[in-house]
Amino acid sequence: MENLHPKKSLRDKLHEIIYEADTRGGKIFDVILLIAILTSILLVMLESISSFDDKYHTFLDISEWVITILFSIEYVLRVISIKKPFKYIFSFYGIIDLLSTIPKYLTFIIAGYHNLAAIRALRLLRVFRILKLTRYIGASNRLIVALKASKAKIAVFIFFIIIICVILGTVMYMIEGAENGFTSIPRSVYWAIVTLTTVGFGDIAPQTPLGQLIASVIMILGYGIIAIPTGIVSSEIAKSEKIHTNTQSCTNCLVEDHKDNAEYCYNCGRKII
Amino acid sequence: MENLHPKKSLRDKLHEIIYEADTRGGKIFDVILLIAILTSILLVMLESISSFDDKYHTFLDISEWVITILFSIEYVLRVISIKKPFKYIFSFYGIIDLLSTIPKYLTFIIAGYHNLAAIRALRLLRVFRILKLTRYIGASNRLIVALKASKAKIAVFIFFIIIICVILGTVMYMIEGAENGFTSIPRSVYWAIVTLTTVGFGDIAPQTPLGQLIASVIMILGYGIIAIPTGIVSSEIAKSEKIHTNTQSCTNCLVEDHKDNAEYCYNCGRKII
Amino acid sequence: MENLHPKKSLRDKLHEIIYEADTRGGKIFDVILLIAILTSILLVMLESISSFDDKYHTFLDISEWVITILFSIEYVLRVISIKKPFKYIFSFYGIIDLLSTIPKYLTFIIAGYHNLAAIRALRLLRVFRILKLTRYIGASNRLIVALKASKAKIAVFIFFIIIICVILGTVMYMIEGAENGFTSIPRSVYWAIVTLTTVGFGDIAPQTPLGQLIASVIMILGYGIIAIPTGIVSSEIAKSEKIHTNTQSCTNCLVEDHKDNAEYCYNCGRKII
Amino acid sequence: MENLHPKKSLRDKLHEIIYEADTRGGKIFDVILLIAILTSILLVMLESISSFDDKYHTFLDISEWVITILFSIEYVLRVISIKKPFKYIFSFYGIIDLLSTIPKYLTFIIAGYHNLAAIRALRLLRVFRILKLTRYIGASNRLIVALKASKAKIAVFIFFIIIICVILGTVMYMIEGAENGFTSIPRSVYWAIVTLTTVGFGDIAPQTPLGQLIASVIMILGYGIIAIPTGIVSSEIAKSEKIHTNTQSCTNCLVEDHKDNAEYCYNCGRKII
Repeated sequence: MENLHPKKSLRDKLHEIIYEADTRGGKIFDVILLIAILTSILLVMLESISSFDDKYHTFLDISEWVITILFSIEYVLRVISIKKPFKYIFSFYGIIDLLSTIPKYLTFIIAGYHNLAAIRALRLLRVFRILKLTRYIGASNRLIVALKASKAKIAVFIFFIIIICVILGTVMYMIEGAENGFTSIPRSVYWAIVTLTTVGFGDIAPQTPLGQLIASVIMILGYGIIAIPTGIVSSEIAKSEKIHTNTQSCTNCLVEDHKDNAEYCYNCGRKII
Repeated sequence: MENLHPKKSLRDKLHEIIYEADTRGGKIFDVILLIAILTSILLVMLESISSFDDKYHTFLDISEWVITILFSIEYVLRVISIKKPFKYIFSFYGIIDLLSTIPKYLTFIIAGYHNLAAIRALRLLRVFRILKLTRYIGASNRLIVALKASKAKIAVFIFFIIIICVILGTVMYMIEGAENGFTSIPRSVYWAIVTLTTVGFGDIAPQTPLGQLIASVIMILGYGIIAIPTGIVSSEIAKSEKIHTNTQSCTNCLVEDHKDNAEYCYNCGRKII
Repeated sequence: MENLHPKKSLRDKLHEIIYEADTRGGKIFDVILLIAILTSILLVMLESISSFDDKYHTFLDISEWVITILFSIEYVLRVISIKKPFKYIFSFYGIIDLLSTIPKYLTFIIAGYHNLAAIRALRLLRVFRILKLTRYIGASNRLIVALKASKAKIAVFIFFIIIICVILGTVMYMIEGAENGFTSIPRSVYWAIVTLTTVGFGDIAPQTPLGQLIASVIMILGYGIIAIPTGIVSSEIAKSEKIHTNTQSCTNCLVEDHKDNAEYCYNCGRKII
Repeated sequence: MENLHPKKSLRDKLHEIIYEADTRGGKIFDVILLIAILTSILLVMLESISSFDDKYHTFLDISEWVITILFSIEYVLRVISIKKPFKYIFSFYGIIDLLSTIPKYLTFIIAGYHNLAAIRALRLLRVFRILKLTRYIGASNRLIVALKASKAKIAVFIFFIIIICVILGTVMYMIEGAENGFTSIPRSVYWAIVTLTTVGFGDIAPQTPLGQLIASVIMILGYGIIAIPTGIVSSEIAKSEKIHTNTQSCTNCLVEDHKDNAEYCYNCGRKII
């Protein structure tokens, strides 16, 4: 829309590049931003590997500063280029942008910052920015529609799973007891979830014959009810794809259900108007 | 219906609140009951964590007494407000209500009650009460219809799984033997179930090459046949949703369940208006 | 058919009871046989638990003898009552019946029989007899039709899985090596199958960062391609259920796809002949 | 087509046998090649088992030489029989054929070759040759069509899984820390993938109550979202099978893809005979 204006101020141009994705400048900006975010996430991950951090500490530190300064500039440009800066600053993505840029600057202020892993991990919040970028690219709208439609059913299903796990976890706590690793009901419920979802870490495993029998029941149950969410989502996806078929009906014989590109009625042969 | 009566006795009012969910009072009662049940379950779980129980024993004890007295009052009110008290007392939920309220009172009678974890766990039976409450809320009727319709097929499937696990478990017991953890046939069958359902605890794992080959077959089998319950439930859900699409009923013969594009009743041939 | 005969020989009566399931006697015989088989399987399982066998050895021994004599009588009756005894004796179920009855008698002949677990396990072959009995009961024919129809696709899928596991197993053997438990290519392929099928025992687990990266790829792959057998079976079941709808077409307007119990055409209202 | 030529040179005959699969000679050649490849793969696998290699080293060595010479002859014949040899030599399968044949010859040149497992494993590349051979046999084209159609959706799904695992892995790294095995963010992300995909090795497992709570959320999430790829593939397979139901084509405008009960062409309106 702003393209129609004969002359654009610098702020308008910046706004177009930063906030919009339909111009060439905007697209290039988005791609650069995506690369910067992915690099930044990679750096945070590498930094957390102590053996890697010991070797390449200086390299990681400098890279982090480059990334931080780039994001700082981007933040300032976002604030400047928008008409209502506070709307951006206090928006979800505004807060994420700020929180993920600050940590590096805090190294000056807080001594012993090195141990404040929690603050440094804030930089990983940038991952949510990717989700915003993919909103432009994403073509999987039908999938999201199908998932939203089955939201209520999936909630009921998860609620049902948790109830089962509470009951079975308690039963296992009674049978196996603390000596076999089922030290408390919450821990037994955790084990029941591990088993029912077919994850099966094996850090806790039933030792008594009766416990193993009940575990077998839980496993077969879990193996069987995995069909439920699958069935729900499958039928929703199938439905969401049916919706987009032709809704025209023949004016002559009233038959519906025509193909999308139908020109003539498949039943009586009259032209579909 | 009872709302139409000009004057209601206290018992009628109580009955309306406790046993019905369509008045404002009844709904508030249900929500409070749900919160009380969830709190009670949480307390039982926290109590089972010995480190937590040691620290906050007094707090847990008092909270338990508060909850127990509340449920006792509720139980008495339920008995009083109903016309046929014995019908409630000997009903499934009546017995659950009683069994889950008694344990706390038994602490006076039984010495060394502290170890009677089984009796204390009875309080967790309240979890079933939640299922009753959700019956009002639940809108997942179609899902239950689909599951009921596929009940017979799922039973055949589970029977088939168990036969396979008995055969494969015995074969593994022959091959691996007691020295590799397959100490008995039931234990080997348990292992086969753990493997076929893709849980895989790892507490028992084949060590011989032949055992690992057969384990591979079991795993690929399990990975493949998970498709069977999923296929059954998917097709049932798809069917249950097709049935309910057209809600028109014939004005002549009252038959329902017409096709989506039906113009005439399939039963009597009259036009559907 | 044989019921129509005015007089039946003892052999005919026996044949009817033992080999047929549509008379009252035959059904009772089948139920008794099923119970005997299940008891027999349970006894073999219990016997394999050494602690149980030590305690109740005499009880198990006597029970086994009772079961064995019962099956011996049944075997003799089967041979006597049939017109062509050799056809039964050399049939699949004939051989199973013999092999599963003999082991107990061998205890007289072979000294140190106690250790010949392999021979004793032969008794478990009776499990296959259950499959024969369920053939009468089973109503899951559509499921079997659907599975048979997707047999070729599932074979291609399993072949594809094995190729992937051979390639990925070898790669992991290169990366992780013997020091991390990937002692040989077959063992690494076994690990790849354990991982791809989402079983995950954990007896072998990658230790190097690169190994864990490839393991992640295998896991996401396995998590994703489980959709393939499921999709195949789902669509086959859906198809097998569509087949049984009404195949009539209206003689007036030629529209098909009527409901199963349709009396009149849903499109033009004429009676369907 | 070349069959129509009255006389064929030896090169043409060889080309027909080696590169084509529709003549009898070509089919026999393909079957022999398949057996040779499978034998070769089996030999490489057996060789990697050190206990087996120690015992049967000479047998394995001779077998390898036989296989290698056979593949060398095949390679030379392939180069000779084709008109443009370089097109084959630098093609994907040409390079694979060369790389998988060379390793055995290198034993003369390189001392201590025995340890160069990486070079020896090159022989396993022949596995890809099987994929080429199955291209002739395979009848699962619809499955591949369905998978290609859902490629974009599956990519979005995998991207989504990785983002979730990065976020949840980092959270677990914060909560559990190095003392419970979550030594770095990449390792925690690896654990999150292991858990979400329901593999669950158990080499790393949460120890803190909060960690176990979040692990429970991840597991239920993973158990639920396995429905998404399944739903996608199921609906694609269902679609790909619907398309091919009516094979009639309009005699007037040659348009295909009519509805099952179509009487008239949806494109031009002519009656379909």
